[in-house]
Amino acid sequence: MNINIPRGTQDVLPDQSAQWQYVTEIAKEISRKYNYKEIRTPIFEATELFQRGVGDSTDIVQKEMYTFQDRSGRLITLRPEGTAPVVRSYVENKLHGAPQQPLKLYYFGPMFRYERPESGRMREFYQFGVEAIGSDDPAIDAEVIAMAMDFYQACGLDNLKLVINSLGDQESRASHKHALIEHFSPRIDEFCEDCQARLAQNPLRILDCKVDREHPLQETAPSILDYLNEDSKLYFETVQRLLRDMDIPFVIDDNLVRGLDYYTNTSFEIMLEEPEFGATTTLAGGGRYEGLIEELGGPSVSGIGFALSIERLLMALNARDALPNVENALDVYLVTVGDVAAEKGAGILRELRHEGLSADKDYLGKKVKAQFKAANRLQAAYTAIIGEEELAAAMVKLRDMSTGEEENIPMKRLAGHIKQLQKMQ
Amino acid sequence: MNINIPRGTQDVLPDQSAQWQYVTEIAKEISRKYNYKEIRTPIFEATELFQRGVGDSTDIVQKEMYTFQDRSGRLITLRPEGTAPVVRSYVENKLHGAPQQPLKLYYFGPMFRYERPESGRMREFYQFGVEAIGSDDPAIDAEVIAMAMDFYQACGLDNLKLVINSLGDQESRASHKHALIEHFSPRIDEFCEDCQARLAQNPLRILDCKVDREHPLQETAPSILDYLNEDSKLYFETVQRLLRDMDIPFVIDDNLVRGLDYYTNTSFEIMLEEPEFGATTTLAGGGRYEGLIEELGGPSVSGIGFALSIERLLMALNARDALPNVENALDVYLVTVGDVAAEKGAGILRELRHEGLSADKDYLGKKVKAQFKAANRLQAAYTAIIGEEELAAAMVKLRDMSTGEEENIPMKRLAGHIKQLQKMQ
Repeated sequence: MNINIPRGTQDVLPDQSAQWQYVTEIAKEISRKYNYKEIRTPIFEATELFQRGVGDSTDIVQKEMYTFQDRSGRLITLRPEGTAPVVRSYVENKLHGAPQQPLKLYYFGPMFRYERPESGRMREFYQFGVEAIGSDDPAIDAEVIAMAMDFYQACGLDNLKLVINSLGDQESRASHKHALIEHFSPRIDEFCEDCQARLAQNPLRILDCKVDREHPLQETAPSILDYLNEDSKLYFETVQRLLRDMDIPFVIDDNLVRGLDYYTNTSFEIMLEEPEFGATTTLAGGGRYEGLIEELGGPSVSGIGFALSIERLLMALNARDALPNVENALDVYLVTVGDVAAEKGAGILRELRHEGLSADKDYLGKKVKAQFKAANRLQAAYTAIIGEEELAAAMVKLRDMSTGEEENIPMKRLAGHIKQLQKMQ
Repeated sequence: MNINIPRGTQDVLPDQSAQWQYVTEIAKEISRKYNYKEIRTPIFEATELFQRGVGDSTDIVQKEMYTFQDRSGRLITLRPEGTAPVVRSYVENKLHGAPQQPLKLYYFGPMFRYERPESGRMREFYQFGVEAIGSDDPAIDAEVIAMAMDFYQACGLDNLKLVINSLGDQESRASHKHALIEHFSPRIDEFCEDCQARLAQNPLRILDCKVDREHPLQETAPSILDYLNEDSKLYFETVQRLLRDMDIPFVIDDNLVRGLDYYTNTSFEIMLEEPEFGATTTLAGGGRYEGLIEELGGPSVSGIGFALSIERLLMALNARDALPNVENALDVYLVTVGDVAAEKGAGILRELRHEGLSADKDYLGKKVKAQFKAANRLQAAYTAIIGEEELAAAMVKLRDMSTGEEENIPMKRLAGHIKQLQKMQ
C-alpha cells in the first residue's frame, strides 16, 4: 500500500532542486553584500515562545500552529515564523553583548502553519528572512527594505509594488487604539465573534479581518497616520526620504496591518503585480518591532526584519520564465565495453572526480549504444571509451560530444586533458 | 521571563554558521562530481511511513520518534531519518519511470530523535545523505562508500576507519535468522525484555543490544558471513575487490548490524579514530536495502545509501583545528562625518552593493573614531570616508586598511576603483 506525502507539503524533486539552489545562492550573496550573517534555529520551539512572541490574539497562534507534547510532556510547536526564534536566540545567547551592533542576521528554512492549502500557500513553506536587532536608526529600515527589493531584482523579478505604512510608536499606537475602540464599540455586535474579542485585545486587528472586510465602519475607521506623534511622524518621513534617495518607488497604505502583535513604526509589504496571479499577491512582508526583545527577557532595544516566501518567488519566476537554465550538465560519461572494463570503470571515475570533474557511468549492464544514449541524456560534454584494447594499452578514446571528434589519449592524462580542453573553450 | 531552546536542540550562531556553510558546500560539490541531484522532502511524514519503512522492531520507531496528531487528527512524525521519505517520494512521484536509472539522489537537512542528549548526539541533528535507487550493481555500492570517504577527505578528515559487512540477500538472511534463533532460544530468559521480544521479531537485533552486549552467547553467535549463499558471497567479494581497486582500506566486522530492518548485502560504517573522542565514534553509516521500495508500493528494485552527521563532522574538524578560516571579511566600511553624510550613506552603500561589494556602515550614531573601530572589527579591507567637504565636491576619501594609505576619488568611481584595487592584489 502506498503512503502519501502529508497534505499541504511538497517534495522538491531533482529537476526542481536546481531552482531552489539558485535562489538560495542569490539570498546568500545578497546577505554577504549587505553584511548579514546566517543564524539557524531549531525547527521546533517551546509553544510559549510563539504565544508571547507572535501574540495570543493572532490567527497564527489561535488557529494555525502545529503544537504537540514531546515524550516528556513539554508543549512544543513547529515554528510558524522566524522572528520569535531569532529573538529567543538573541536573548538566550546574550548577542546584545556582541561588540558589533546592530546584529544583522539572516535565516533560510521551513516554517509551518496549519492553513487550508491553496496555490502558493503550503502548510510547510520555506522563508528567507532577515533581522537587524539593536538600532532604531531609520536608515536600517531603509536598508532592510532595499535588501528585499534588491533580492527580487537579482532573481530577475521587477514587476513589484512596495507598500509601506507606519504603525507609530507605542504612544501613537495607544491613542490610535483608543480611537478605534470609540469607532467600533457602538456597532461591534454587527461584527464577527473574532472581531468582538479583538475589540478589547487588539482592535487594530479588526482592520485585517477577512470576514468583516466589507463592513461600512471599516472604510471610515480612524487612520493610524492621523495619530502619529511628532517622533513617529519624523521617523516615517525619514524612512520615506531615504527610499526616495535610493530611487525605490513606494506607495503608502494606512490599512497595512502586519499579522504580529509587536510591530511599531515602519511596516511594509512587497506585492507582485502580475495579472495571472490575481490582483495582487504578497511576496514579502516585514517591519519594525519594539517590546518583543524585552518581553523575551532581553534589553530594551528594537529590531526590524522581513520574511519572504521561496515558493511564491519560484512560482512568480516560473510564470515569467525568468529562471535561467540551472541544470548541471555532466563533464564526462564513461562508456565501457566488456566486463573487465566495466569493473575498472569505478577507479577511473574516482580519479576524474578527484580532479574536480563531474563523471558518471552505467550501473545497469547496458550495451554500448545505450550507454551513449545515457551520455546524451546527461548532456555529457565528453565520453571516455574503454574496452579491452584500450585497457591493454592503458589508453582511452575521448569523444567530444558536441563535435563528434575522437582522439586516443593515455589513461593517466585523461583528467588533465579534459580540463585543458575545457579551458580552451 | 526567559524562554529557553528545547532540550537537545541547538542554535547555529553567526560565528559558527560559516562552518556549516563550508561543509554544506563541500557536500554539494562532491554530489556534483558524483552526479547525485538534490531532493527535499518534508520535515514531517505520516507516522506509518516510518513504522513500515524503518521497522516496527527498531529503537527508532519504538522509543525515539516525535509523533503527534495534527489538527485534523492525522498521526504525523518528525522524520527520524532520510531513507524512508526519499523512497516514499520515489514511489509517489513514480521516479522509477525516469529515463536515467539508477536514480542518484542526495539530501541535506534536520532529522529528529528523542534520545538522551549527549556530546555529538542531539534530538535535532543534521544529516547529509545519498540514495542510489534502481541498480544492484556492486559498483554502485563501492561508489556510495567512495563518495562518503571522499567527502570526509575533502573536509580535511583522514583518520577514518571504514568497516564493512554483508547481511546477505533475503535467502541468506533467512538461514542466518534460523541459526540465531537456535543459538539464543535455550537461554533467552537470561536476556533483557527487549531481546526476548526481538528473538521472534528480528533476532539479528539482539547482536546490537546495548544492555546484553556482555552476555557470553553474543561472542559465540553464528556469523552471517558463514550463512551467505553463493550470490551473496560473490556480491560481497566484488564490493571488496572494487574498494581495493580504488585504494580504499577497510576492515570486515560481522557484528556490524545497521539499525534499520530492510538492509541486505552491503552494510558499512565510517568511524573516527581519535583518542579524545573515546575509542571510536561512528560518523556515517549506510547500506543496501531491498524490499523497502516494494513495501511502500513501488517496483521490486533495491537501493543503497549513506547518511552522515554534520554535528559530529564539525566536532571532529574543530577538535583537529582542521577548519579553514571561513569568516567573510568586509570589502568596504563607510565612515560618515556629520548628519548629512550619514543620511547620504544609505544610497552610497546600495551602489557599492549593486556592484557586488560587501559594504556596511554605522547605524548607532557613533563618532568617527568608533566607526573606524567597527571597520577594523569587521576586517574591512577599505574604508570610504565622507564628510561635508567630500559631499560638496562629490568626492570620497578611500583608505586601504592594511597599509593606511589614503586617496581622494570621485564618488562616482568609488565602486569601480575598489574593484580595480582588489584585482591588482
